[in-house]
Amino acid sequence: MINMRAAVFEQKGKISIREVPRPSPGPGEALIRVTLTTICGTDVHILRGEYPVKQGLVVGHEPVGVVEALGLGVTGYAPGERVIVGAITPCGQCRACLSGSPSQCDHGGSGYEALGGWRFGNTINGCQAEYVLVPNAQANLAKIPDGLSDEEVLMCPDIMSTGFAGAEQGKVKIGDAVVVFAQGPIGLCATAGAKLSGASLIIGVDRIPGRLEIARKMGADVVINSAEQDVVAEVRRLTGGGADVAIEALGQQATFESALRCIRPGGTLSSLGVYSSHLQVPLDAFAAGLGDHTIVTGLCPGGKERMRRLMSIIASGRVSTRPLLTHSFALDQIEEAYELFGQQRDGVLKVAIRP
Amino acid sequence: MINMRAAVFEQKGKISIREVPRPSPGPGEALIRVTLTTICGTDVHILRGEYPVKQGLVVGHEPVGVVEALGLGVTGYAPGERVIVGAITPCGQCRACLSGSPSQCDHGGSGYEALGGWRFGNTINGCQAEYVLVPNAQANLAKIPDGLSDEEVLMCPDIMSTGFAGAEQGKVKIGDAVVVFAQGPIGLCATAGAKLSGASLIIGVDRIPGRLEIARKMGADVVINSAEQDVVAEVRRLTGGGADVAIEALGQQATFESALRCIRPGGTLSSLGVYSSHLQVPLDAFAAGLGDHTIVTGLCPGGKERMRRLMSIIASGRVSTRPLLTHSFALDQIEEAYELFGQQRDGVLKVAIRP
Amino acid sequence: MINMRAAVFEQKGKISIREVPRPSPGPGEALIRVTLTTICGTDVHILRGEYPVKQGLVVGHEPVGVVEALGLGVTGYAPGERVIVGAITPCGQCRACLSGSPSQCDHGGSGYEALGGWRFGNTINGCQAEYVLVPNAQANLAKIPDGLSDEEVLMCPDIMSTGFAGAEQGKVKIGDAVVVFAQGPIGLCATAGAKLSGASLIIGVDRIPGRLEIARKMGADVVINSAEQDVVAEVRRLTGGGADVAIEALGQQATFESALRCIRPGGTLSSLGVYSSHLQVPLDAFAAGLGDHTIVTGLCPGGKERMRRLMSIIASGRVSTRPLLTHSFALDQIEEAYELFGQQRDGVLKVAIRP
Amino acid sequence: MINMRAAVFEQKGKISIREVPRPSPGPGEALIRVTLTTICGTDVHILRGEYPVKQGLVVGHEPVGVVEALGLGVTGYAPGERVIVGAITPCGQCRACLSGSPSQCDHGGSGYEALGGWRFGNTINGCQAEYVLVPNAQANLAKIPDGLSDEEVLMCPDIMSTGFAGAEQGKVKIGDAVVVFAQGPIGLCATAGAKLSGASLIIGVDRIPGRLEIARKMGADVVINSAEQDVVAEVRRLTGGGADVAIEALGQQATFESALRCIRPGGTLSSLGVYSSHLQVPLDAFAAGLGDHTIVTGLCPGGKERMRRLMSIIASGRVSTRPLLTHSFALDQIEEAYELFGQQRDGVLKVAIRP
Repeated sequence: MINMRAAVFEQKGKISIREVPRPSPGPGEALIRVTLTTICGTDVHILRGEYPVKQGLVVGHEPVGVVEALGLGVTGYAPGERVIVGAITPCGQCRACLSGSPSQCDHGGSGYEALGGWRFGNTINGCQAEYVLVPNAQANLAKIPDGLSDEEVLMCPDIMSTGFAGAEQGKVKIGDAVVVFAQGPIGLCATAGAKLSGASLIIGVDRIPGRLEIARKMGADVVINSAEQDVVAEVRRLTGGGADVAIEALGQQATFESALRCIRPGGTLSSLGVYSSHLQVPLDAFAAGLGDHTIVTGLCPGGKERMRRLMSIIASGRVSTRPLLTHSFALDQIEEAYELFGQQRDGVLKVAIRP
Repeated sequence: MINMRAAVFEQKGKISIREVPRPSPGPGEALIRVTLTTICGTDVHILRGEYPVKQGLVVGHEPVGVVEALGLGVTGYAPGERVIVGAITPCGQCRACLSGSPSQCDHGGSGYEALGGWRFGNTINGCQAEYVLVPNAQANLAKIPDGLSDEEVLMCPDIMSTGFAGAEQGKVKIGDAVVVFAQGPIGLCATAGAKLSGASLIIGVDRIPGRLEIARKMGADVVINSAEQDVVAEVRRLTGGGADVAIEALGQQATFESALRCIRPGGTLSSLGVYSSHLQVPLDAFAAGLGDHTIVTGLCPGGKERMRRLMSIIASGRVSTRPLLTHSFALDQIEEAYELFGQQRDGVLKVAIRP
Repeated sequence: MINMRAAVFEQKGKISIREVPRPSPGPGEALIRVTLTTICGTDVHILRGEYPVKQGLVVGHEPVGVVEALGLGVTGYAPGERVIVGAITPCGQCRACLSGSPSQCDHGGSGYEALGGWRFGNTINGCQAEYVLVPNAQANLAKIPDGLSDEEVLMCPDIMSTGFAGAEQGKVKIGDAVVVFAQGPIGLCATAGAKLSGASLIIGVDRIPGRLEIARKMGADVVINSAEQDVVAEVRRLTGGGADVAIEALGQQATFESALRCIRPGGTLSSLGVYSSHLQVPLDAFAAGLGDHTIVTGLCPGGKERMRRLMSIIASGRVSTRPLLTHSFALDQIEEAYELFGQQRDGVLKVAIRP
Repeated sequence: MINMRAAVFEQKGKISIREVPRPSPGPGEALIRVTLTTICGTDVHILRGEYPVKQGLVVGHEPVGVVEALGLGVTGYAPGERVIVGAITPCGQCRACLSGSPSQCDHGGSGYEALGGWRFGNTINGCQAEYVLVPNAQANLAKIPDGLSDEEVLMCPDIMSTGFAGAEQGKVKIGDAVVVFAQGPIGLCATAGAKLSGASLIIGVDRIPGRLEIARKMGADVVINSAEQDVVAEVRRLTGGGADVAIEALGQQATFESALRCIRPGGTLSSLGVYSSHLQVPLDAFAAGLGDHTIVTGLCPGGKERMRRLMSIIASGRVSTRPLLTHSFALDQIEEAYELFGQQRDGVLKVAIRP
């Protein structure tokens, strides 16, 4: 048996590099040699034991790589082709997928639970490794267009897909006023997504001046430091009564609540954050249920067509996510990378991990 | 000056019939002689001081009547024509109306607050009276088709418009499984609206057996008595994993929370209830914000085109709201009617009030 | 090798029963023993050489049957289970499928052409046979609920799916006025679909009195015999200016043009017909391109979730398609069945074919 | 009576400046002193007698100006305020407006015909004049934000609203491939609108090299000179099978047909052109009605909220329409301006007319 090196969840507080068996693709699967990947906030939750996964699981869900081998029935690809795979890997064939909820995929089963489409580094081995096995490869392998580097497409599998979804599920349209809460990697992509969707006023909110600076580069017309200003009052003033859409990209009560207070009657709260406790919806902010408000949540859209579209945005030069890639590590240095990223030191936004 | 009799909010706990001046229509207004009206749950909140209105206000927002006089600029109508007016009276010309949020109308002003479109018996005199003045009459007077009685159209201004909106804003479509929490007048119309929208499984929930019986007549395929059964478990069992849409028609934490627990990943909670305290969104029911859930709220759609459409449904025989009209009173007996309706005695659903 | 009997396209004008090899399921495929099927108008076009298929092809695309054998990788099914399969068999994994156009599926390829999802009896062997091989079985096998007979679900694979799509793609909503041109099997299902979608006025149009009678049973409020009345004038009169949606279910210039003339400014023409010559759009009917008109076309939606939903409608009793099944034949009598159906004799709507 | 100077349609081939009575605002109306306006292609059709209007009508429908006087009931405005008014002036209160088709407004009447919302220079006096009377002023007066010049907002009333609508009604979304046929003023704004909507590939088509150059500035990634290249083949090559959306902005059979041939199965043809003869839909391009194609047409969206949104785009710097304003004339020189614009001489795109 051939082995490979991989970042494995050992126990709460410990992810380390280990030798594990290199897998072989079964029917409908593909084996990808990973050339670049990254660490997500969710991986930090796993490291800290805040999100439970099995001991021994290979973590990571944002792969860029090269086709190494194809399982039976996967057509239209060849070994050596450069590909990315979305963090979420819908099968395209189950009830959830065929009902328009592919992120909630149950990969062929007959019942389904939330988050089923998130498999890499959650229910199956992930991609912080030399190789990763891709399930339902026919629906998930997305060829990288010539001329795009690994670094340029690294944000597509999760950060960009999730961030843009904030604007898309919020139905941002030409001329909208949009406020985006938190300008971490996903919030920054939500800001870019709002601009791509035609918003005429985009307000970026965060507490870290450095992030607000990048927010301007990604499309924010105005930035508000929530440590210094009354965000709700300022958004109402700037928008003449409330934003059409507020995007929440942090996952906390305070930002959720402020987002709700920032939208106009008839407005939409588009929530991207991963919450870790119950949420409270204040009666007044909710207009007692009579404000024609919409609250919409979402999990990162995946699948090869989504990836193709995101890469076409990168290729067009409309958006660059390169400013988000602030640090780089070899796979063997991944514990160091987790430490830096987990502590949010040195202005880190996203780290490149090179197997 | 000519007087008229009207139900007036005197103080907390007291609505009584008084002589008040009969109004005259100004530009863009119409005076309607009320021939039939009813009492809404909201009116009971006003009576109890739970929803604040000015002392001396004429209450009521569900008018059926006859055009008595037309103000300057109102065209296409003539005195003597039978009309209804929606509970919500959008102007059609303000930013909210022109942005697709007519219920949040600010009737021509330059900023807007939630619920602005609800004026009758809230910010201007209402229709539990012999006459009512209709603002923005051009947008709000809806002629009653020949052949429909006052009783047949009495639910259109609020109950039917609100209830149907539960299905519409929830985007119920052909083949959906829908659960409707609470089978009061609005919930019953939500049940009828879900059926009209093509749902193939409609589950009606309430604690009152008599209401569950009527729910079946209005379109429920299955009913669940929430006092006797675990609603969430039963809905999951019946739907094979969760409803596509849950409609909340009560306005309480328990029903809101159960509704959220009943929907499938990717499903929609359509909220109609008027809440009276903060809501809690349980972390698990919300899938930590990753379940592709949508929560949508709404205020009764108004305007003459909405009323025309609702009356066309009645005229077609698709839905009858007559079973909801359980009691009848003269306007002068309205205190008695409030008492009965407020106590929910004698199986009351809605009361007819005849000026 | 085991043989089976099947209806084979021999040459223009000749479809006959032959012995052909019974297939075996490869990876991702399933073999279904057909228990009931039917003949579609498209099959008659094939017979007449108006739609080209390869000589020797087994025709038919509306299978009801029992799982005989499953190929590698198909999970959640067992031999002996009763299933239907849609006429269109999307793979769920190609660009078209992942772009929301599953009927235009190219089953895994890298480019796509219109109609790619229609494979049975078109590009692969169909189901007017004792057995049929189902491609992409995971996405396409739909279990028949207990209690539904083969006859009750026979219209789901094509007729009901297509007809309902007429209402769905036309976005028929509560209170709409809808006119349906031609009351053959698909038009009758479009009529039923418009009713399921909440239309308050449904006008059925045809030239055959018997079909207009059935139209009333399927949901038409008014019927117009186009041989006797000026349909456009009558629809305008009944609707007070034009229908919200017109559904074309014949595929001819005259009905397409009348449908366009029947809709109001801002209305939608939902086209289901298969046209056989260029269409002309009259300048006045099209308001010179300024009428806010929408023209939408569609190919029968397929996939197991679509089938599940359609069967749930049948199971709920909302719609019965049994009145459409007017004649019955054994598979060996299929030439006779083609003759009857092709000539539209004896009031035939759809024929049951029993292998 | 006070007079004013205005461009009046005298007879086929003759629009000239005349003294006409200056109007006074009635209830719901406003009188605007025009400070800048322009000539539209439609005005040239009127001049040539190709679109019939009454003799003596003041032409023009794109006003920028200052409030001179307000009629009874118009609130929230004051004389001296700078405003624009859309070419289309919906009343907000009729059946068409309340049904989501405000451009098809019948301004309060009880029946409606296509194009009813276009009143200026069509059914009432227009704005190529010193003053113009605005109907339904409450719904139509849009204040110009401080800091925007008349020239900067001159395209909002028609060209930008129509062009952007090409992208909006075509539902262009993030990552789409879009082709825009004809790069005149409206086509150029459609190109800008497609970019604002997130398209990742925009292909501009025209026969005039100068227009293709401007197309690149407005957002085209690729331009095709249809006099030199096979547009359909080239679009298919660039898009890998067809554009998601094709926008037609000329109004001719050739461009309509090419647009239809350019879209992928499941794609949308968004038509803006004003056609002058019947259209033919080729059978193959239409996939016999089975390609899941959508054809959508539209008339310029109007109303003050639309204008506010468009001006917010200008104010944000996202789009500038100044490159479209190539020539300038005094009102008294308008015949000369018509001659230049009608002949499309000197690279003219749009002309400024200054009363």
